[in-house]
Amino acid sequence: MAPGKKGILERLNAGEVVIGDGGFVFALEKRGYVKAGPWTPEAAAEYPEAVRQLHREFLRAGANVMQTFTFYASDDKLENRGNKLSFTGAQINEAACDLARQVANEGDALVAGGVCQTPSYLSCKSEADVKAIFKKQLDVFVKKNVDFLIAEYFEHVEEAVWAVEVLKETGKPVAACLCIGPEGDMHGVSPGECAVRLVKAGAQIVGVNCHFDPMTCVKAVKMMKEGVEKAGLKAHYMVQPLAYHTPDCNCQGFIDLPEFPFGLEPRILTRWDMHKYAREAYNVGIRFIGGCCGFEPYHIRAVAEELAAERGIMPAGSEKHGMWGAGLEMHTKPWVRARARRDYWENLKPASGRPLCPSLANPDGWGVTKGHADLMQQKEATASQVRSRHMLRSGPSLFSMSLDQFV
Amino acid sequence: MAPGKKGILERLNAGEVVIGDGGFVFALEKRGYVKAGPWTPEAAAEYPEAVRQLHREFLRAGANVMQTFTFYASDDKLENRGNKLSFTGAQINEAACDLARQVANEGDALVAGGVCQTPSYLSCKSEADVKAIFKKQLDVFVKKNVDFLIAEYFEHVEEAVWAVEVLKETGKPVAACLCIGPEGDMHGVSPGECAVRLVKAGAQIVGVNCHFDPMTCVKAVKMMKEGVEKAGLKAHYMVQPLAYHTPDCNCQGFIDLPEFPFGLEPRILTRWDMHKYAREAYNVGIRFIGGCCGFEPYHIRAVAEELAAERGIMPAGSEKHGMWGAGLEMHTKPWVRARARRDYWENLKPASGRPLCPSLANPDGWGVTKGHADLMQQKEATASQVRSRHMLRSGPSLFSMSLDQFV
Amino acid sequence: MAPGKKGILERLNAGEVVIGDGGFVFALEKRGYVKAGPWTPEAAAEYPEAVRQLHREFLRAGANVMQTFTFYASDDKLENRGNKLSFTGAQINEAACDLARQVANEGDALVAGGVCQTPSYLSCKSEADVKAIFKKQLDVFVKKNVDFLIAEYFEHVEEAVWAVEVLKETGKPVAACLCIGPEGDMHGVSPGECAVRLVKAGAQIVGVNCHFDPMTCVKAVKMMKEGVEKAGLKAHYMVQPLAYHTPDCNCQGFIDLPEFPFGLEPRILTRWDMHKYAREAYNVGIRFIGGCCGFEPYHIRAVAEELAAERGIMPAGSEKHGMWGAGLEMHTKPWVRARARRDYWENLKPASGRPLCPSLANPDGWGVTKGHADLMQQKEATASQVRSRHMLRSGPSLFSMSLDQFV
Amino acid sequence: MAPGKKGILERLNAGEVVIGDGGFVFALEKRGYVKAGPWTPEAAAEYPEAVRQLHREFLRAGANVMQTFTFYASDDKLENRGNKLSFTGAQINEAACDLARQVANEGDALVAGGVCQTPSYLSCKSEADVKAIFKKQLDVFVKKNVDFLIAEYFEHVEEAVWAVEVLKETGKPVAACLCIGPEGDMHGVSPGECAVRLVKAGAQIVGVNCHFDPMTCVKAVKMMKEGVEKAGLKAHYMVQPLAYHTPDCNCQGFIDLPEFPFGLEPRILTRWDMHKYAREAYNVGIRFIGGCCGFEPYHIRAVAEELAAERGIMPAGSEKHGMWGAGLEMHTKPWVRARARRDYWENLKPASGRPLCPSLANPDGWGVTKGHADLMQQKEATASQVRSRHMLRSGPSLFSMSLDQFV
Repeated sequence: MAPGKKGILERLNAGEVVIGDGGFVFALEKRGYVKAGPWTPEAAAEYPEAVRQLHREFLRAGANVMQTFTFYASDDKLENRGNKLSFTGAQINEAACDLARQVANEGDALVAGGVCQTPSYLSCKSEADVKAIFKKQLDVFVKKNVDFLIAEYFEHVEEAVWAVEVLKETGKPVAACLCIGPEGDMHGVSPGECAVRLVKAGAQIVGVNCHFDPMTCVKAVKMMKEGVEKAGLKAHYMVQPLAYHTPDCNCQGFIDLPEFPFGLEPRILTRWDMHKYAREAYNVGIRFIGGCCGFEPYHIRAVAEELAAERGIMPAGSEKHGMWGAGLEMHTKPWVRARARRDYWENLKPASGRPLCPSLANPDGWGVTKGHADLMQQKEATASQVRSRHMLRSGPSLFSMSLDQFV
Repeated sequence: MAPGKKGILERLNAGEVVIGDGGFVFALEKRGYVKAGPWTPEAAAEYPEAVRQLHREFLRAGANVMQTFTFYASDDKLENRGNKLSFTGAQINEAACDLARQVANEGDALVAGGVCQTPSYLSCKSEADVKAIFKKQLDVFVKKNVDFLIAEYFEHVEEAVWAVEVLKETGKPVAACLCIGPEGDMHGVSPGECAVRLVKAGAQIVGVNCHFDPMTCVKAVKMMKEGVEKAGLKAHYMVQPLAYHTPDCNCQGFIDLPEFPFGLEPRILTRWDMHKYAREAYNVGIRFIGGCCGFEPYHIRAVAEELAAERGIMPAGSEKHGMWGAGLEMHTKPWVRARARRDYWENLKPASGRPLCPSLANPDGWGVTKGHADLMQQKEATASQVRSRHMLRSGPSLFSMSLDQFV
Repeated sequence: MAPGKKGILERLNAGEVVIGDGGFVFALEKRGYVKAGPWTPEAAAEYPEAVRQLHREFLRAGANVMQTFTFYASDDKLENRGNKLSFTGAQINEAACDLARQVANEGDALVAGGVCQTPSYLSCKSEADVKAIFKKQLDVFVKKNVDFLIAEYFEHVEEAVWAVEVLKETGKPVAACLCIGPEGDMHGVSPGECAVRLVKAGAQIVGVNCHFDPMTCVKAVKMMKEGVEKAGLKAHYMVQPLAYHTPDCNCQGFIDLPEFPFGLEPRILTRWDMHKYAREAYNVGIRFIGGCCGFEPYHIRAVAEELAAERGIMPAGSEKHGMWGAGLEMHTKPWVRARARRDYWENLKPASGRPLCPSLANPDGWGVTKGHADLMQQKEATASQVRSRHMLRSGPSLFSMSLDQFV
Repeated sequence: MAPGKKGILERLNAGEVVIGDGGFVFALEKRGYVKAGPWTPEAAAEYPEAVRQLHREFLRAGANVMQTFTFYASDDKLENRGNKLSFTGAQINEAACDLARQVANEGDALVAGGVCQTPSYLSCKSEADVKAIFKKQLDVFVKKNVDFLIAEYFEHVEEAVWAVEVLKETGKPVAACLCIGPEGDMHGVSPGECAVRLVKAGAQIVGVNCHFDPMTCVKAVKMMKEGVEKAGLKAHYMVQPLAYHTPDCNCQGFIDLPEFPFGLEPRILTRWDMHKYAREAYNVGIRFIGGCCGFEPYHIRAVAEELAAERGIMPAGSEKHGMWGAGLEMHTKPWVRARARRDYWENLKPASGRPLCPSLANPDGWGVTKGHADLMQQKEATASQVRSRHMLRSGPSLFSMSLDQFV
């Protein structure tokens, strides 16, 4: 950490708002450096200038945290890919740390080393095996002296607890995020209970990331907070949601939407949606507010602009952005100039330009879609295997139930 | 031009498909380097690494043309901005040329110097004055020895003809694009007639860019082609449309949509929409196929992938992309694996996740929207001024007429 | 005609607005007395009280014309049905005349005897054969002394002209309606030219009915009027459209929409849509304004209420209806009371409650839908037969073309 | 009751399916005999032939129950109307009984006398006062010897219990329906607890009617059944929902939707939606299945057709209806003939034809809509009054919560 920079806990303990960065995997897929499907981050070593540029854009947008681009960079996941990579896991993780640190040093940002869920857990390896996987990535983070650690994108609180236990050994601050919604983890553990377990395991910051849209994630973190407070515990809270509207998800999130991952465009949040998200997260008491898949730099900038008064600073990138559309004031057409005001954009209900498309989708997954008997049998087979180990809740989700009645 | 590279006309004369790049102004606005409203490209001088990175991404996506990032970089437009810039117009134009050349040299791409419509024309300056404006940018392009020239984003064919006449003096190949749809330019000149005038003025390549979605633009270029052929002339054709669905536009394009420019997200085309666009453009006989506002690198990659057989080459960026979703074949969930096939994505009707939003909008502009009397009076006043000079067609457009009956 | 009642031409010549009735076939299908598919009107003889009640409701709603319920009651069509009816064609036509007359006598309404297109024409019978079919129905109308005659629901102006020629022999006023839109009849004859031929054949009133929504039909009649006036002829104009929104139709109208006939509910016009329709029809110069399929009594009442000032009378049924929602003024909830005003209902964009459904559909028919190869081959076969006789326009329609680009 | 007819409890005890009728108030409003706002049934006395015809249509559609058209016919409600009626409450109630009996005698139907919630309860009159109101209508039902009684459309279980207590005194079978959804009554009493109270008060049949769409109502009745069974009690179950899709309702149902009552058309269920409803209701164990506002005769026919095998009889009206679109088999166009099959209609997602309209709406009511400060203040004032007496749940409803995140 650069001398004079406050650490993550110092900031949160002081009541500061910490802005996270956005999702690297999806943003770099669109830029041509990550392959959808494997989603692995070898670009950190292969195309460092592309990764560095994205870090810079988020920094400029107001982010206080540079997460190392190490998503799915555990050795078991990299091996899983099937095609040979030119770099080892350690090389990728090290390159990612160097890039994050370089850009963090250019501004008021900290470096967070990140681990996420492993194929080893899903294939029922032992606690020791799974922890060994985390340990390997962690060795790099310790060597590169990241500022704090984030265990994120866990569908099962059990695996997240294991990760926290490993990360805690470093003595660095630990944040833990599940990719769950208000219905809880894939074992059916409620958000409140999940948070309690993570705090008890040693996480100082808990929250959710990915899988659901901002308002759903904020709601889930709110439930976490209520659980932690009810248990008489203390924690800081973070949220890093999708930049996609997903009101039609079932409990497994946007993966099961038919549009995942190549048809999500109509669901992308506008910057004005981000203002509402940032305000709602703040009101709920969340102070580490960032983004995950779908977040582009301008989304993070909107979060930083909404909370500029609370943070006492505008993001550097706002040099190129008029608040609430103010940049349109010089437009030649009077009816476009008339859009340079807050209430216009706050109340706009943007059209999709797609009259042949519906507004909601029926998520895939067992018991929901109809008329694809073969696929459903496959799904059932998988589902029952999964259930036998993970005691998955078999009941339909809140949202899919209410969708059943839609036509 | 690097030794051994074929020029733009050589390629087109040989029947090759030339892939253009995407829209810098919108892409860099999202990345934090361009201000919406002024839309000027000072970032070429201010943040060269950000502009260079975007060039690289388009090159990697398959683009054969690096357009200099000189949109709205005419001196009259830059002065118009109202706020002082740290760089002169010449510096911005030169920096843009250098960046485009540097990246073009990294692959099989040409550099195109671009000029676009000027405030001088709209404020009724003389032909000589307007031509002098073009000349100033052109001096830089000649000095930097770009490979060819593009006059683009003209709403009035008259001004485009003036631009072509200036550009022709350099002896370099000249392309000319209007930002019009099938209804023609703002004087009501049909696409066919516009094209004839541009070809007669000396343009070897004609087409349209910006303002409308791909299928609408392709249709307009088809009308241009029919006009040119009917007149017994010859030309090559290009198209660089929006990456937004805009079936509800009136004749002035997406500027008048209520979502412009900060709420267009739900309209963004998917990569699969781009496959259809590329095929349709090719079928119509267009051989210079690129993009404008909204195009991200993955959109251009999709165009290059669709035409890989015709071009005999896959884009470099396809290293990180499975054709038709093939990358999903290794997904853990069988119902996501089931999406790794062409017909799934071709037939998907993606949901917006926004059930409170409509699918089409009523464009702003005179005579269309209702209930905003004050604004409409303003508009009328403006409109009548505009009409008095430009003989704007007062009749409602095709699309707005059919929208009148929608509820 | 009751002594003292003014005839249809007297009314129209005096500049009065004549309100038509609504569609019996669809309304009685929903009530259980007409079978969708055959659509024949045997209920006039089988269930007279049900037919009489519907006449009464339209009279009460303000209708000045009681059309005999004789749609598809030509002998060739009745035979076509395949299942034996208990009544002869003559009995059905006579019963229908009696019912219309009985109710017309209860108010200020005239009886119009109606004929429509015949299977004989579509199966290429001779002019003499087709005319003989009309003659048979006409004999009943003459015997029952209807007040005037309407030849309606013709897709081909040629057959409509034959009908007018037969009807003219009675000496009664003759109205003629095609079921076409702005693209013209199935031979590609424009609305203007169609109208000219009908007027030359002797029709005093010309217009369109069925197949398209109100605004589309009004537009087609406007084109008819322009054609007639350009030819230096004179006529009165009528319009009896669908009560369904059909902006996505191709040239053959709502038959080709995938929702026809059992899923049209989301397209049903509100009473407020009807106000707009009535006003637009009036403004265009149409003075005989009614409805066809989908029109329920309250739709006709809305037309009559919109034109109450012009007609100098409110419909009897308005005893049970507050203008512009005034009946809500006494509601217990203040936010429902707040809806008792014109601008609320005029500006409401009603939601469908169907987030899984699109807002527009791709019509069936040749060359439009995709992915149903077998069906399309069948269609092509049929289409080519049809074309060979009827010289159907092979080009895609305006609307289907613009829909091609929708996603 | 006609000799030889089985009573309502005999039928239900034998496991028979009883089909209810549809909503008279809305159907007759569209026909011109009921005024929206007051919604009172004076037409029973004023226009008996119109009311009789609607009874006949429902009988023909398969209904086994003719409900007397006595909705809002309590003396306190009739007085409330503000405009003088030509008939007394007793006259209206008697006329309604006679009409129902006359048509019931024409087929296999019973007559049910109905009472509903009173203004007296809402204005805080005493239990004795409210019961006296019910008693007055009941005197007519006893005099006219209806076959059984239905207390329906109660928002508060307390008032419904009072009604049941009064109705029980007659010795006739008593059914009780609340107009609530899964969130329970306006005091926040759950559906299960509501049902228990009604059964304990003596109702032999319990269920819900009006206010929500079929699937929501079935869900609420399912919760009632679970509550009754958990309490060790026994009952029969009935459901008479709206024929409108209302997934976006808050706890107060469709009244609060912005489309109520004059813009609900796009929400109308198709006959195919009714098949799904009937099957779901049957599967849940409901055996008295009918409809409320929005149900037209063809909707009830669809319910009867879906359950034809279980009932052992097709409705008389199916004489004019081919199952699953079979009537289209004779259509001239092959692509329309191709719609004559079950899976076509079961899977159709019908388009609205309204691309400028959203698919869901934000319900009115406190705390939900935005930007109408004055109205909201009014609402708040009302709400706080209501809450102070009725202890209304102040929390946002399930649906409105999830809608908050929609754009």
